[in-house]
Amino acid sequence: MEPLKLLPDEEIKLRVSLIANNMRHQGIDIGIINDNANIYYLTGRVVSGYIVITSDERAVWFVRRPNHLTGDHLHYIRKPEQIAPLLTDEGIELSGRTIGLEMNTLSVNDFSRLQKALCANSSVTDISAAIRGARSIKTPFEIEQIRYSGQRQEAVYRTIPSLYRPGMTDLELQIEIERALRLAGCLGQFRISGNSMELFMANILCGDNADTPTPYDFAMGGAGANPSLPVGANGTVITPGQTVMVDANGNFNGYMTDMTRTFYLDEISPQALLAHQCSIDICQALSDIARPGVEARRLYELAMEYVAEAGLEDYFMGHRQKAGFVGHGLGIEINEAPVIAPRSTDILAVGNVFALEPKFVIPGTGAVGIENTYVILDDQTVCLTGAPEELLPL
Amino acid sequence: MEPLKLLPDEEIKLRVSLIANNMRHQGIDIGIINDNANIYYLTGRVVSGYIVITSDERAVWFVRRPNHLTGDHLHYIRKPEQIAPLLTDEGIELSGRTIGLEMNTLSVNDFSRLQKALCANSSVTDISAAIRGARSIKTPFEIEQIRYSGQRQEAVYRTIPSLYRPGMTDLELQIEIERALRLAGCLGQFRISGNSMELFMANILCGDNADTPTPYDFAMGGAGANPSLPVGANGTVITPGQTVMVDANGNFNGYMTDMTRTFYLDEISPQALLAHQCSIDICQALSDIARPGVEARRLYELAMEYVAEAGLEDYFMGHRQKAGFVGHGLGIEINEAPVIAPRSTDILAVGNVFALEPKFVIPGTGAVGIENTYVILDDQTVCLTGAPEELLPL
Repeated sequence: MEPLKLLPDEEIKLRVSLIANNMRHQGIDIGIINDNANIYYLTGRVVSGYIVITSDERAVWFVRRPNHLTGDHLHYIRKPEQIAPLLTDEGIELSGRTIGLEMNTLSVNDFSRLQKALCANSSVTDISAAIRGARSIKTPFEIEQIRYSGQRQEAVYRTIPSLYRPGMTDLELQIEIERALRLAGCLGQFRISGNSMELFMANILCGDNADTPTPYDFAMGGAGANPSLPVGANGTVITPGQTVMVDANGNFNGYMTDMTRTFYLDEISPQALLAHQCSIDICQALSDIARPGVEARRLYELAMEYVAEAGLEDYFMGHRQKAGFVGHGLGIEINEAPVIAPRSTDILAVGNVFALEPKFVIPGTGAVGIENTYVILDDQTVCLTGAPEELLPL
Repeated sequence: MEPLKLLPDEEIKLRVSLIANNMRHQGIDIGIINDNANIYYLTGRVVSGYIVITSDERAVWFVRRPNHLTGDHLHYIRKPEQIAPLLTDEGIELSGRTIGLEMNTLSVNDFSRLQKALCANSSVTDISAAIRGARSIKTPFEIEQIRYSGQRQEAVYRTIPSLYRPGMTDLELQIEIERALRLAGCLGQFRISGNSMELFMANILCGDNADTPTPYDFAMGGAGANPSLPVGANGTVITPGQTVMVDANGNFNGYMTDMTRTFYLDEISPQALLAHQCSIDICQALSDIARPGVEARRLYELAMEYVAEAGLEDYFMGHRQKAGFVGHGLGIEINEAPVIAPRSTDILAVGNVFALEPKFVIPGTGAVGIENTYVILDDQTVCLTGAPEELLPL
């Protein structure tokens, strides 16, 4: 047997209270949580099951699998229909209450089953935003996890030039980077909210492949190795004058950092150099103003001011197809709040962790720019991904 | 610009007709398809958008991203609200019809938006089963894709003993197998239907780690490298007397094969040898009876007869925690129809592709058994994963 809860009791209490506080603001009495990422947030491990949270900060765990866990307020179930009577034993009644379900991630059929089983005499609303908001305020414990991932990711990035061999394709270099990350402890898995985003372990873009539009809402493109996963490296041989942008997985412990660095072979065009420096300048400027209370979209506007000043509008965040943001929150998943985009309504707060990725695609050369992960602390905003930022020779 | 449709016209027609036929049986007039796997099935590439299929076998494509595609019946949109008037131009009216949406995969919020935008004057039902049923009947074109993946996966499996170095952990061996698969063209991504299943590129189980229960509905367990992804290899050093089960990604072109082989170091217990042979015998016996018209659950029952005969019930499909199936359909996703399980209602048919994975966990030794992928053809059921099946020395 093993303990269900792998986090300190105080840490779980803190996370439950962050969600319950948002539930109270939204008039949600009881939340029923099923999403793997949310279960990991509240437990420190992924289980198949449900967590019930009340607006007065109680929590009850219902687990289907694995079958070898123990803990307080833990009930083993085979199906969600068993939850209601067990909750009654815990002193929690569902009837007549406002129940929040995860409408952003639950499938229609899973939702219908839960609604029928548990909400027949209740009103149902969406708890997605309440949880997303809570998770965007990282606790000190979480920030330490993210800091650790950043340190490990950074150490591997420093070895990238040593992994290059003349004549390599982008895919071959990617495979060596993936291996190095895995040997350093990277879990390999991006956790992405929603069904529509898919990515393998890294997005590595060489030369004009960076300008191939993709179906996904990532910052950069690439044809991919196959139209079934049309993003990233496509087998381009790395040749002089091209850039190689490396945006590779930084998940070492369930918490991700996101970092991009750009390399080049032999020579680089002046325009690419200019755009790369613009990216570094934007990261510095945006992180300087990223303080509590600032509107997230203000960061996007400031980025656009730098881009316009440099005359690089045509190349910013893509060329043939553009991404509509310059940064994104991250943590357990790669697409959390806050969103750094023109129509974002997010307001920055202490504990936000976000990546800034002002990138450019220069036709004939490839993608340039950097990406760093930042955390907003009480007294400063700190970069967690500190490898050298300049264009680096392979 | 590039063509939207990467499949021959006749192939798309065939797949549309397979779905439309099921729609007619279920009284669905119009299907609206959004899931990446289903879009790949009907297009030969993943796009962000929707495909509308009518019960009289017309199809219209609505694409949001990427922005560089051309084709017949292709409309670029920014949002689903634009679909209805464009369908009117195509001679398709939504009003008053029965519309099928993918309720197994659409999130509640995405469903609500589609329902409001397109189904205000229509009745809505679930099209998931109609598509799942169609996709379970692989076309000759699809079978060739799967056959190719099997050949490539098999070639890499033959090299596994050469990748082993004394003193390796399960994770280190896994990383070398992953690298070899990637260098051979493996895309690395498992596509899994549903939100709850997660897996990195392979599940490699050494010794007693195979007996650690997991939250996921996979055949085998393993603690994993981290509780955020609790499945598979956990860093166990491979030592004499242990088995190493390798169940690694066979996705070389958007279609998967599933194959497991088991290796050992120096020596192996008689009970493990017996169970491994039982697995080989079960695969042979089940594939022999896997003919059109046979109930899928009959295969499970026959497997259980072999297991009981060998006295291995306690170890079959797990020991501390058991999986409730012995095989599963696969193709674009790893969990398709038919399901080979005791309560399955699936009836085997020509074109079904499925994996059989009768596995055992022997305490003190580890996991043993094999997995193969089979296709049911008109005149025979053929194995597509032909590497040697016996327990192999590392």
